[in-house]
Amino acid sequence: MEGLDYLSDERKKAEFDVEAMKVAWAGSRHEFQVADRMAKLVANDPVFEKFNKPMLGRKELFKNALRKVAYAWKLINDLRLSDEEVKWLREYIDEHNYTDLHWEMFVPSLEGQGTLEQKNKWLPLAKTMQIIGTYVQTELGHGSNVQGLETTATFDPQTDEFVIHSPTLTSSKWWPGGMAKVATHGIVYARLIIDGQYYGVHGFIVQLRSLEDHLPLPGITVGDIGLKFGHVAYNTMDNGVLRFDHVRIPRNQMLMRVSQVTKEGKYMKSNVPRQLSYGTMVGVRQKIVFDASTALSRAVCISTRYSVIRRQFGSHNGGPETQVIDYKTQQNRLFPLLASAYAFRFVGQWLKSLYIDVKQRLDANDFTTLPEAHACTAGLKSLTTAATADGIEECRKLCGGHGYLLSSGLPDLYAVNVPACTYEGENVVLLLQVSRFLVKTVSELKYKQPVGTTAYLGRATVLMQKNCVVQTSEDWLNFDEILKAFEARAARMIFDCCQRLAKFEKSEEGFAELSPDLVEASLSHCQVIVVSKFIEKLQQDIPGKGVKHMLELLFYVYALFLLHKHRGDFLATRYLTPKQVSLANDQLKALYSKVRPNAIALVDSFNHSDHYLSSVLGRYDGNVYSKLYETAMKDPFNDSVVADGIHEYVQPILKQTLHSAKL
Amino acid sequence: MEGLDYLSDERKKAEFDVEAMKVAWAGSRHEFQVADRMAKLVANDPVFEKFNKPMLGRKELFKNALRKVAYAWKLINDLRLSDEEVKWLREYIDEHNYTDLHWEMFVPSLEGQGTLEQKNKWLPLAKTMQIIGTYVQTELGHGSNVQGLETTATFDPQTDEFVIHSPTLTSSKWWPGGMAKVATHGIVYARLIIDGQYYGVHGFIVQLRSLEDHLPLPGITVGDIGLKFGHVAYNTMDNGVLRFDHVRIPRNQMLMRVSQVTKEGKYMKSNVPRQLSYGTMVGVRQKIVFDASTALSRAVCISTRYSVIRRQFGSHNGGPETQVIDYKTQQNRLFPLLASAYAFRFVGQWLKSLYIDVKQRLDANDFTTLPEAHACTAGLKSLTTAATADGIEECRKLCGGHGYLLSSGLPDLYAVNVPACTYEGENVVLLLQVSRFLVKTVSELKYKQPVGTTAYLGRATVLMQKNCVVQTSEDWLNFDEILKAFEARAARMIFDCCQRLAKFEKSEEGFAELSPDLVEASLSHCQVIVVSKFIEKLQQDIPGKGVKHMLELLFYVYALFLLHKHRGDFLATRYLTPKQVSLANDQLKALYSKVRPNAIALVDSFNHSDHYLSSVLGRYDGNVYSKLYETAMKDPFNDSVVADGIHEYVQPILKQTLHSAKL
Repeated sequence: MEGLDYLSDERKKAEFDVEAMKVAWAGSRHEFQVADRMAKLVANDPVFEKFNKPMLGRKELFKNALRKVAYAWKLINDLRLSDEEVKWLREYIDEHNYTDLHWEMFVPSLEGQGTLEQKNKWLPLAKTMQIIGTYVQTELGHGSNVQGLETTATFDPQTDEFVIHSPTLTSSKWWPGGMAKVATHGIVYARLIIDGQYYGVHGFIVQLRSLEDHLPLPGITVGDIGLKFGHVAYNTMDNGVLRFDHVRIPRNQMLMRVSQVTKEGKYMKSNVPRQLSYGTMVGVRQKIVFDASTALSRAVCISTRYSVIRRQFGSHNGGPETQVIDYKTQQNRLFPLLASAYAFRFVGQWLKSLYIDVKQRLDANDFTTLPEAHACTAGLKSLTTAATADGIEECRKLCGGHGYLLSSGLPDLYAVNVPACTYEGENVVLLLQVSRFLVKTVSELKYKQPVGTTAYLGRATVLMQKNCVVQTSEDWLNFDEILKAFEARAARMIFDCCQRLAKFEKSEEGFAELSPDLVEASLSHCQVIVVSKFIEKLQQDIPGKGVKHMLELLFYVYALFLLHKHRGDFLATRYLTPKQVSLANDQLKALYSKVRPNAIALVDSFNHSDHYLSSVLGRYDGNVYSKLYETAMKDPFNDSVVADGIHEYVQPILKQTLHSAKL
Repeated sequence: MEGLDYLSDERKKAEFDVEAMKVAWAGSRHEFQVADRMAKLVANDPVFEKFNKPMLGRKELFKNALRKVAYAWKLINDLRLSDEEVKWLREYIDEHNYTDLHWEMFVPSLEGQGTLEQKNKWLPLAKTMQIIGTYVQTELGHGSNVQGLETTATFDPQTDEFVIHSPTLTSSKWWPGGMAKVATHGIVYARLIIDGQYYGVHGFIVQLRSLEDHLPLPGITVGDIGLKFGHVAYNTMDNGVLRFDHVRIPRNQMLMRVSQVTKEGKYMKSNVPRQLSYGTMVGVRQKIVFDASTALSRAVCISTRYSVIRRQFGSHNGGPETQVIDYKTQQNRLFPLLASAYAFRFVGQWLKSLYIDVKQRLDANDFTTLPEAHACTAGLKSLTTAATADGIEECRKLCGGHGYLLSSGLPDLYAVNVPACTYEGENVVLLLQVSRFLVKTVSELKYKQPVGTTAYLGRATVLMQKNCVVQTSEDWLNFDEILKAFEARAARMIFDCCQRLAKFEKSEEGFAELSPDLVEASLSHCQVIVVSKFIEKLQQDIPGKGVKHMLELLFYVYALFLLHKHRGDFLATRYLTPKQVSLANDQLKALYSKVRPNAIALVDSFNHSDHYLSSVLGRYDGNVYSKLYETAMKDPFNDSVVADGIHEYVQPILKQTLHSAKL
């Protein structure tokens, strides 16, 4: 029935202050208020309606996305929204479009890699959207390995220009978002060639389309690369393919902050170090971690609410069936994901502050913390996006058959988030990078005390020798015991890899041969970071009745679930005994019962609007079944009772007249 | 370039007879030949073209599917195809439609649950498709628990009719395929009520639509439940919602093989045991296991072929980059899936023979092997569908960014196969059923020797006491050592659960509390089955040069990968030491190098046509990049250079005229 809150009884069970938890989740009262205001702005505006999207064909879907961008840009200007407000506005509009690339890749690249002169020329145009840019790096045959790109930028001293060219089919630029139909400019990565000599891959500002009639400029062939995973998902974005046929640009459109080419064709490095580009990567990846926690929280919210509404089996004497959330198997799959959403949120908040610190240092030419920050963000990007993608699908499966309906909101939530496992550094490749950083850290231990997230490796002797002292399941409710366990397991796995690497004559052969083990060791290190940052959060002041206690419960669920899942590592490194592993598992199941009454309040604390969730199963009021029915009946496919095609292709079968039917 | 085989060098590396392997994969030369003939029939017929599907809107997509069904039915009749040929024809048409339900659920239900009289009346109509049926069980608020269904069938002795009614919103029938738009009849499951008394849930033959004008009959409201996961995937199927408003059917349309209602309203059980329905379930689920191996093999084939074509990093002195299949991390993710496809195929073949045996016994009223067969198929359905769904996604990720394109064939392969984790028994619910069977088997050990797949539990004393004797990594290349390890781990986990269950006063409380552990124990038992059936296969005669040796390699990859993945169990049960686990891991990586040169030949052995795979990345000739480019350029979205919407919604931004634009 309309107006009823089917979840009100569940909400009354909460043992903590939900409003205070919303602030903890948001990071601060200010963040909460800004986000909440923008969420409402979007939810109340019919232009941002989302339910109709699956019915649209690709062209209509794209046009609809363009309309929203224009409308939003007008809103931003009319209401003079701040950068912070704009960030949340875009988040709640919840649709990928060409402006993602413009604001997150094009503008930052100009800012980071352009000279002062270049910034003065291009940034005002970009920031007012008089030009729309994209980031043109990957090619049809080349992804992760930037040094493998084939597009060339050949300097022509006669005209003081670069000639941008796609020499092979595989050099066709492929994937850049916004490139297929919208972007007027691109930062194009190409092999710099001067006088027949190769000088590495550099970025160039290349105009792609006329600002007058929007047609591609001469020498440019461009198109869309076709539909992608899911129904709507990323199909609002025009990912493109582009080929250059000797396109000329002025010399001053090479991004020259780090290295220059002079009028005479001389290649010169500036005093700005190359590592600068790592700073941008740290920024992009810390945002991905934050986004992962958001995406997982949406799935968990939907699945938790529906698990309370949905009943199955266990009816006694004709009474109602059991709420599925009361089954231990459901709790065992759902609650660790609920806890993970919080864990990733807090590590994301920490990563954000780390990034601000790194950025300030870079501006002051201090590169000391960059390698660790780089390894941190790479590893956490890998850990959180993989767990989030799997977690969304698990939440979907936990909704039973109905989770398979687009109207559940879950299928496209998965399809739109899973590419984060691949873009901005493929997850396994990133863990291998982390492993190289860890191996290097260990090799330098003799003369260099590790700091930050690797500090624990400096206590290796203790971690290698002392085993866990837990004797009862209650002993596991102890931050220190848990942290020590994760540190010891990671340290032992990392040192074991180092010892085995040392046996190879050629170190690269060792890295290749042991790569699967190095990946596992890196993951164990990344888990240390998440666990330790969660603990640090809990050691801070967290206001609100019962809030800190609830977060402690979630911390233990997160940590003990991981411990159970990876018990092979803990046992193989001999830090834990089978008995201790079993005690952790007992404690975990006891914790589920404590989380249970708070489950709805814990997902309410994400403060996701019904508009944002866009899920019939995850409705705030729990009025699932009548809305499912209503939504189905309104589907355009139900416009006619006898569907198109029945007369031509079904009736001849039924009436046995197929031999004379026109097929 | 057209006509070139980019994989020919890889094909030359094969160390076994591919044609003989095709026969082993198919099960017999006869099966291979029939399947191959049907694959070619479909691939060469333009009506069965698949590449255009993603561009179609829902209504066109559905109409297109109806056309294919009619065309295929005509083909079947014109060519007088055998049942076996029809099975493969439908497999290679590779599109879900209403006939799935008609042939796989409606007809078998009539056959299994109808009386001789009912069969004589309805089967001839169904088998000539003069009526089209579906299976109407699940409801909006009721899935797995059949006893919770709300639809009522009330006997009216006055008219000798049943009145079928949907008393609540949640009793609306929801999900049945073919019901929304096509089916003329349904087997409807409803609560039988006679004279106010409830007699359990039974099946009733109910006509849904007029055979003349195809309109729903009076009292029936029916529609489609809306779009589902993926782009095309299951959206060719019209899953429906249906409500009954006191719809009357003659008494003789209750399926009466197991129990009858007389004219006088007397409810009587026949001498046919209820377990009969388990026989149908065994049949359906063994087919799902078989389909899982096929689906996984398709993903593995695409991913393996593209992993050979794709190159990344590792270039020395400007030479070509390394084929990604040569990276150990790629092998470590891909080769276990390749091995799993074979493992699932062989256990599927065994399950098929088991089903034939069970069916023969049921016909002779022998129910002795049914419980074990039921547990086997339930468990293997769960194991194989879960691993296949995850495996398809892993294969997609292993293709990097391009795997995210629909044209890779992988996104929709996932979307269309993942519901098998949920339908016909949710996977975790099924493992819980298996655990009950295992606990029962253990409780009866004192007086009943377990047989078949549980026979090893009869050797529990040995398995509990003797630990593994492996001392070198070569020792792991031994069927017996591997089988003993899997048996010991499973037996120890099962017995541990039984001991802990015994401590609960109420056994149901124990089952609830320990359910997550019971699920893990069941999975370990199911892995024993897969491992042991693979070994049994290898102990048979397998003709063809090198074929048996290759399958042995794949067996070891499968088993040792599982062992590594679940090392926590093997260590926690103390059957293996950390050293032995580590030796298994060393051996596993050595095996990858032996599989590598045979990888392409091993996926060629699946005999999947390019039409069937429908993947630009998985093309037989490996001509990936030019076809990707070509496919993109042919996308209808590229019909116009300046897309619809640019003029209205992008140019006003660029030209700063948004204030006066109409949005």
